[in-house]
Amino acid sequence: MRGVVMYAPGDVRVEEREHPTIVEPTDAIIRVAASCICGSDLWPYRGAEDVDHTPMGHEYVGVVTEIGGEVRNVKVGDFVVGSFFASDNTCEICRAGYQSRCVHAHPMGAIGTQAEYARIPLADGTLVATPGEPDTDLIPSLLAASDVLGTGWFAAVAAEAGPGKTVAVVGDGAVGLLGILAARELGAERIIAMSRHADRQALAREFGATDIVEERGDAGVARINELTEGLGAHSVIEAVGTQESMMQAIDATRPGGHVGYVGVSHDVSLDGLTLFFSGVHLHGGPAPVRRFLPDLIRLIWERKIDPGKVFDLTLPLEQAPEGYRAMDERRATKVLLTV
Amino acid sequence: MRGVVMYAPGDVRVEEREHPTIVEPTDAIIRVAASCICGSDLWPYRGAEDVDHTPMGHEYVGVVTEIGGEVRNVKVGDFVVGSFFASDNTCEICRAGYQSRCVHAHPMGAIGTQAEYARIPLADGTLVATPGEPDTDLIPSLLAASDVLGTGWFAAVAAEAGPGKTVAVVGDGAVGLLGILAARELGAERIIAMSRHADRQALAREFGATDIVEERGDAGVARINELTEGLGAHSVIEAVGTQESMMQAIDATRPGGHVGYVGVSHDVSLDGLTLFFSGVHLHGGPAPVRRFLPDLIRLIWERKIDPGKVFDLTLPLEQAPEGYRAMDERRATKVLLTV
Repeated sequence: MRGVVMYAPGDVRVEEREHPTIVEPTDAIIRVAASCICGSDLWPYRGAEDVDHTPMGHEYVGVVTEIGGEVRNVKVGDFVVGSFFASDNTCEICRAGYQSRCVHAHPMGAIGTQAEYARIPLADGTLVATPGEPDTDLIPSLLAASDVLGTGWFAAVAAEAGPGKTVAVVGDGAVGLLGILAARELGAERIIAMSRHADRQALAREFGATDIVEERGDAGVARINELTEGLGAHSVIEAVGTQESMMQAIDATRPGGHVGYVGVSHDVSLDGLTLFFSGVHLHGGPAPVRRFLPDLIRLIWERKIDPGKVFDLTLPLEQAPEGYRAMDERRATKVLLTV
Repeated sequence: MRGVVMYAPGDVRVEEREHPTIVEPTDAIIRVAASCICGSDLWPYRGAEDVDHTPMGHEYVGVVTEIGGEVRNVKVGDFVVGSFFASDNTCEICRAGYQSRCVHAHPMGAIGTQAEYARIPLADGTLVATPGEPDTDLIPSLLAASDVLGTGWFAAVAAEAGPGKTVAVVGDGAVGLLGILAARELGAERIIAMSRHADRQALAREFGATDIVEERGDAGVARINELTEGLGAHSVIEAVGTQESMMQAIDATRPGGHVGYVGVSHDVSLDGLTLFFSGVHLHGGPAPVRRFLPDLIRLIWERKIDPGKVFDLTLPLEQAPEGYRAMDERRATKVLLTV
């Protein structure tokens, strides 16, 4: 089968990979209908994470083609959505809603779903079947649920976005934009998108942003304070993962407020005394997308949300290298790969 | 009047200070009945914070002797307890329960309550009157409510201690010990005290600890994991404020669990990626003691809790320098100063 492999930073190829097979009786094999390129795939692409002939991709939707002997919850032919961490969904950590930290978790990034087929470990816990074969136009949104929507949603939940709350969103990539959508769905009163790109501002407004702040860093914090009577936002979503963005998020949050951070932290170091006196709640990490998948699939199926709009470039799998270039050069927010 | 002044690290004196007077119409003056020495007073004593002829003390109980023209909630003769931050208790931040970050907050440490009298700003918001003149034996517990009990309580609340939860407590000083008491009162199922001092272990057990772990750092974390089926504690109270104690707390918490940290963070730096993948909730800072004072006073008044037991040395105000020495040399956990 064909699959994407990153040989080295900047060197992405589509080549023949071995067709996956059932390894454990809890596995399923899916024919991938669509995959995509994640903002986090840019870290190795840019040399900020090690990479060496690595199969790429951890987002996926597709059709089950084979199941192991112990799989009960999905069957061959089901159209399924899964998260970027395979999880048993039965352990104590999963039951508490932290499936990305399941005691048996498998990172799907180690499998590489930018490919024609993928082996899904712990299929019963990992995969959620849609109510039927989806209309083609729903596929981008279902794919978004696999990571960026689920991650933005988790960030909004971690930030305790809700009725009466002012939510600020640091980061206007796909996750930040879908954090806005999540905050709106969770009932936030006011949603401030921090963005300086006109096209992303437009999508932010479409997803529910009520205000746009173009300033960054301390100037951005000052602007959030101006908009919140000097108190800071109740809830801040951090969806970048740099030192500046983390501090912007913490500093823009009022004492007692909540920061939900989902940008993978690179070279971030938080000063203890600053954090102490900030008085914020800080929660984040790899999003337990599986917790939210049934609700997200329902909202998409009922056409109440349209998160697929974050994909602004669709390419066939064979053109994945161009997709990586487009995201690296910020010509695209999020690239969908049709398989 | 007599009051404690720290001239320089290690140099504590009791000397004549000016008798406080009403400055703002919202002020009250109290005759201090008892004050105490805080673990945080040891930071400047040991040279870890700047100090220069600084009046000391921020914990206090006493009797109102004078009120400003706008004070309504307390009257001359009331026995009162207040927090180490004066707060209006009416602003949006106070109403959300974060009185230590009140938009009009005054740190009582800037006033210095290790003295015969003290001016209390924002008396209506800051002071809570007891139901009557307390029995003498209740005074240590009421004084504890002013800071260490309120701080331990906040840590337990921030760590979401409650029914069914396993709570680990890092730090066996007064705050850590009272965090144990708070976790018990909040209904925690299992409370693991991390302590290697026999006398503090005994008090920890009296306050509700069900297990004692003597190991520290990574060994301490390994022990907590052993006690929790490899998952880590649901809730961890951090009551020290060092790099080792913070990491011990974070690492001992299961993914999705809660760390409540109230040790004033000194030279603490949290690695972003470690925190990200820990998946914990982190909340803490200067405790909003005022939020809890009415409940704490009631529990003490009804003799349901006895937090005053953390005071293991009582000295007259004039002997404050010996009190500082005793705490610095760890001969005493917590020193009460009678005034």
